[in-house]
Amino acid sequence: MRLKRVVLERLMRYHRFLSQTTASKPIQTITSAQIAEALDIDPTQVRKDFGAIGLVGIGRVGYQVEDVCCAVRTVMGFDKENPAVLIGVGQLGGALLTYPGFEKYGLSITAVFDSDPAKTGRSKAGHTIRSIRSLKPYIRKHDIMLAILCTPVEVSQTIADRLVSVGIKAIWNFTPTDLAVPPDVLVRDEHISLGLSEIAYHLKQ
Amino acid sequence: MRLKRVVLERLMRYHRFLSQTTASKPIQTITSAQIAEALDIDPTQVRKDFGAIGLVGIGRVGYQVEDVCCAVRTVMGFDKENPAVLIGVGQLGGALLTYPGFEKYGLSITAVFDSDPAKTGRSKAGHTIRSIRSLKPYIRKHDIMLAILCTPVEVSQTIADRLVSVGIKAIWNFTPTDLAVPPDVLVRDEHISLGLSEIAYHLKQ
Repeated sequence: MRLKRVVLERLMRYHRFLSQTTASKPIQTITSAQIAEALDIDPTQVRKDFGAIGLVGIGRVGYQVEDVCCAVRTVMGFDKENPAVLIGVGQLGGALLTYPGFEKYGLSITAVFDSDPAKTGRSKAGHTIRSIRSLKPYIRKHDIMLAILCTPVEVSQTIADRLVSVGIKAIWNFTPTDLAVPPDVLVRDEHISLGLSEIAYHLKQ
Repeated sequence: MRLKRVVLERLMRYHRFLSQTTASKPIQTITSAQIAEALDIDPTQVRKDFGAIGLVGIGRVGYQVEDVCCAVRTVMGFDKENPAVLIGVGQLGGALLTYPGFEKYGLSITAVFDSDPAKTGRSKAGHTIRSIRSLKPYIRKHDIMLAILCTPVEVSQTIADRLVSVGIKAIWNFTPTDLAVPPDVLVRDEHISLGLSEIAYHLKQ
């Protein structure tokens, strides 16, 4: 059974909450009620989500924290390494390159590309910036399935088409545009405007 | 009637699609079927969403593009100015400061803060970085309702508490932590890990 996006997001919240809690104070077990209260989610929902990934709690004891974290990581595929390319080394691309938490999720950026000749050959956060012209051969040679897109809007669809043509299976899209891709390719949008719309709407009320 | 987050997100997609389409080729009207096909959404859903914000299409003509864009902007509150403070001028905070698109959504960053004495007094993207000690007085004095949080995880809850205590009504949270806030305060999370979980899960299949 394929888990829906909302379920994945809740599983991530459980995982993050348990990691944070145990970092400050080691605990062995936790109940669905405790998780539910901390995250403002219904306890039945927590038990259902855990059940969906094969976790069963014991009476008043609840769940083994380590089992939960381990199950989430396995289900998500964080223990599998996902090499990725990053395209567009502007402010945001540069910020992503220095983000320290990717390894935890199995993500490693193995090469970065930019179309600006003034940038290629330079070093950024330990990566030598490559010319966009070497993007396709690189992806083919290293069998890369994931691309992180941080280009200007005007070129994002063109680059996405190139990525798809060489077999990319997921695009993490940081550009504010809707990409058209075949159905087997996942686009995860990180449109900043979506967040802003929710905020502006809330503040208007 | 309060619109749900999923509806807001779809309205934003319509708005972005129409802005992009009309930028490359001016059109006056568009049908729900055309929008639905471009965005891979059911046409009935499009008509329902438009109906929810008071838009009614005409037969085979469809909707006036300008009316749609205008209605979305009004409903979202983008025509209302939202001054904001940004806290934590690291890589990500710095990238957000240079993001060119905020004005379109009524957002203007009026002051930036950091706890690092080495940073305060320096200039970043046209802003003089202020000491975190002046955060509360600034928010009170200027009646700020929105804060953009880009601090290290360890201090994010402490800063959030401070923000809430001086009347902040929305926190745009770029730190990978779940913030505890009163029910009337909106937290919009931009957890990078949520995106990563969806991607890793997809690549695992």
